[in-house]
Amino acid sequence: MTEWIQKEMMVAMNKVREQTPLVPSITNTVTINLVANAQLAVGGSAAMVYLPDEGESLAKLGQSFYINVGTMFPIYQESLPRTVQALVANQTPWVLDPVAVGLGELRTSLLASFKQGKPNIIRGNASEIIALAGLWGLSGGAKDSQVKGVDASEPVEQAIPAAISLARWTNGAVAVSGERDIITDGHKLAFSSGGSSFYEKITGAGCSLGGVCAVYQAVTTPFIAALTASTLYNVAGKLAEQQATGPASFQQHFLDQLYQLSPSQVASHPFELKEVSE
Amino acid sequence: MTEWIQKEMMVAMNKVREQTPLVPSITNTVTINLVANAQLAVGGSAAMVYLPDEGESLAKLGQSFYINVGTMFPIYQESLPRTVQALVANQTPWVLDPVAVGLGELRTSLLASFKQGKPNIIRGNASEIIALAGLWGLSGGAKDSQVKGVDASEPVEQAIPAAISLARWTNGAVAVSGERDIITDGHKLAFSSGGSSFYEKITGAGCSLGGVCAVYQAVTTPFIAALTASTLYNVAGKLAEQQATGPASFQQHFLDQLYQLSPSQVASHPFELKEVSE
Amino acid sequence: MTEWIQKEMMVAMNKVREQTPLVPSITNTVTINLVANAQLAVGGSAAMVYLPDEGESLAKLGQSFYINVGTMFPIYQESLPRTVQALVANQTPWVLDPVAVGLGELRTSLLASFKQGKPNIIRGNASEIIALAGLWGLSGGAKDSQVKGVDASEPVEQAIPAAISLARWTNGAVAVSGERDIITDGHKLAFSSGGSSFYEKITGAGCSLGGVCAVYQAVTTPFIAALTASTLYNVAGKLAEQQATGPASFQQHFLDQLYQLSPSQVASHPFELKEVSE
Repeated sequence: MTEWIQKEMMVAMNKVREQTPLVPSITNTVTINLVANAQLAVGGSAAMVYLPDEGESLAKLGQSFYINVGTMFPIYQESLPRTVQALVANQTPWVLDPVAVGLGELRTSLLASFKQGKPNIIRGNASEIIALAGLWGLSGGAKDSQVKGVDASEPVEQAIPAAISLARWTNGAVAVSGERDIITDGHKLAFSSGGSSFYEKITGAGCSLGGVCAVYQAVTTPFIAALTASTLYNVAGKLAEQQATGPASFQQHFLDQLYQLSPSQVASHPFELKEVSE
Repeated sequence: MTEWIQKEMMVAMNKVREQTPLVPSITNTVTINLVANAQLAVGGSAAMVYLPDEGESLAKLGQSFYINVGTMFPIYQESLPRTVQALVANQTPWVLDPVAVGLGELRTSLLASFKQGKPNIIRGNASEIIALAGLWGLSGGAKDSQVKGVDASEPVEQAIPAAISLARWTNGAVAVSGERDIITDGHKLAFSSGGSSFYEKITGAGCSLGGVCAVYQAVTTPFIAALTASTLYNVAGKLAEQQATGPASFQQHFLDQLYQLSPSQVASHPFELKEVSE
Repeated sequence: MTEWIQKEMMVAMNKVREQTPLVPSITNTVTINLVANAQLAVGGSAAMVYLPDEGESLAKLGQSFYINVGTMFPIYQESLPRTVQALVANQTPWVLDPVAVGLGELRTSLLASFKQGKPNIIRGNASEIIALAGLWGLSGGAKDSQVKGVDASEPVEQAIPAAISLARWTNGAVAVSGERDIITDGHKLAFSSGGSSFYEKITGAGCSLGGVCAVYQAVTTPFIAALTASTLYNVAGKLAEQQATGPASFQQHFLDQLYQLSPSQVASHPFELKEVSE
């Protein structure tokens, strides 16, 4: 029943490694290096910018785009709307990581404006997904979701209604990262477990997952892209943990695994699939 | 005689690991990733921002705050004063790392203005501590201290008078990093040795130490926080050096050690304690 | 015949390790940490800034300077021209890395203006070297060179005419990085091979090579500096690849090698030397 999904995951991984799609980003300065290295490790090509016209140019040149609002700069007031407009105009698929939604005026107003840009994939932790749905006035959302800095404060399952309504609004996919990842296109739900508790002891596990979602988004559907990236992270994290003696060696083994893992190793990782009752 | 200090160091380390305090930063882009990873490795929670209202919000939400002026952006003209004002208003303790004090107008004027914000911990190398005391018109300081880029050019012992007067002014603690670290609250002086010469061959050893001081500052006094962080770095650096084949493997082992070391391993590291003659 | 070159390479490596020259940078945020760590690993001292007056001060204080336009900020409109002017006024040698030349108005206009600043070393991939020569109206250049994000799309040999005319214009050296590196001072051409395919699977191999060129530039001629840095990267990459299980472990071993390799190990790496027919 899930065989076609596993096949598409393997196709996506192979395509990326063969085609090296260009996947530009506007992303935060804390984890920008890890995002780029994770994108390269899985087979993509990365390019990071801050300025409006550079965002526009790369929105056109890129096969997919990653926007992560983790650290805001003043110029983003221009760069992000113009980039999103260019993404829409060029029908370039894009991934949104609504880091720390609710913090600050610029971040909030920009994230609110992205509702019309309909990101093809939204990736976040449970708190962020609930808060973004709240900001967009969608069911399942909550304006007062407890966003405490950059960490999730709510269990992943609580974000299911928000994730579904976001995915239906964008006609894309939503990936909620947590102990158990939930990926939905608004109609079906995939549950994937694995990974490592070390993901909470390094910075950028979530950001780089968003960046890798964007890489797969260049060659497949939002749902398959988000599921492939999340599953890859669950497999790679588990293996890396076995080799690690702490968070830094974990990060190194993890990145090496992103590079090494074969499509079949990833696709054979078990996941649960459910239909959403309409 | 120093037993109570060792006990408090262990209490601080345990508290951080249990409570995962949120310790936001406005810090430089060179070492921002290492700062965050070091803060996570010891058990804290990190969040980095640049904008004024985000600094204000996190000054309120954070249990402690880290400000490092290593790389200045134009927006800091607003962000740093407003954040410091919010820190003072909310009585959130904060740590200042006056990197490259003396370089550039904005950096100099901001560092001068921080005198009134009385950072609970000031961490720097000898040259920076002497120059900051000079900038603040305190005894032991020198306006013409040889600040050569980001490296220390003066022996750590020469900074003792400046460190004492800074600590007395802030009613906090000062940590002077060098071959032998000096930590003072203006009344007692602790001397801690160890670490590794590799600290000079990687970027961010000092910055991340400042960030880790801020993490412990969330749960204990400035003096204990600064001493715990400095001692941890001395122990972790020494162990990491034994496993390293160069600066990059050193950094990895070092971060792993930050995560692994037990409170008693750190607290049992010898240090020297002296009273300051009044 | 090439013995004098090998001798000068060893002299340069030794001088850097003895003198720890200060080599400031204005460089991109993606790879800023790797640039600094590579500069420290080979024996230099690093300092990164963004503001105009800080660039000016460090242009005066530094023994050499590195400018990499990988990520543009609005303030660069002021910072870069003023820094380059100060570099010229103080006769501080500098290295230019024209990353993604052709992308965006600010980047393009700044790179065009650098023609008058005559960077002592220009380092880039083949596409960037051809495009920069085109932008500067020099022979061998092409305005429509296929710059696709940050990756090279043209074979390194095609950039020889552009590299020669750039080197003659600046009276400096040009290093074209590729499967086979080409280093020229406009009159002779050195060809150096080695390295690793992992260089394409990590971000910052090129940027950090530019930063290391700037370190050697502090103590020797542009040609020897560029050749020493490129050869070091070819030897270090080759050795690191043998120890690596993926791109992250490769990066770690590579940085360790930058620190460990002896001058004679580097200088004895074979290279080919040709005269340019006038």
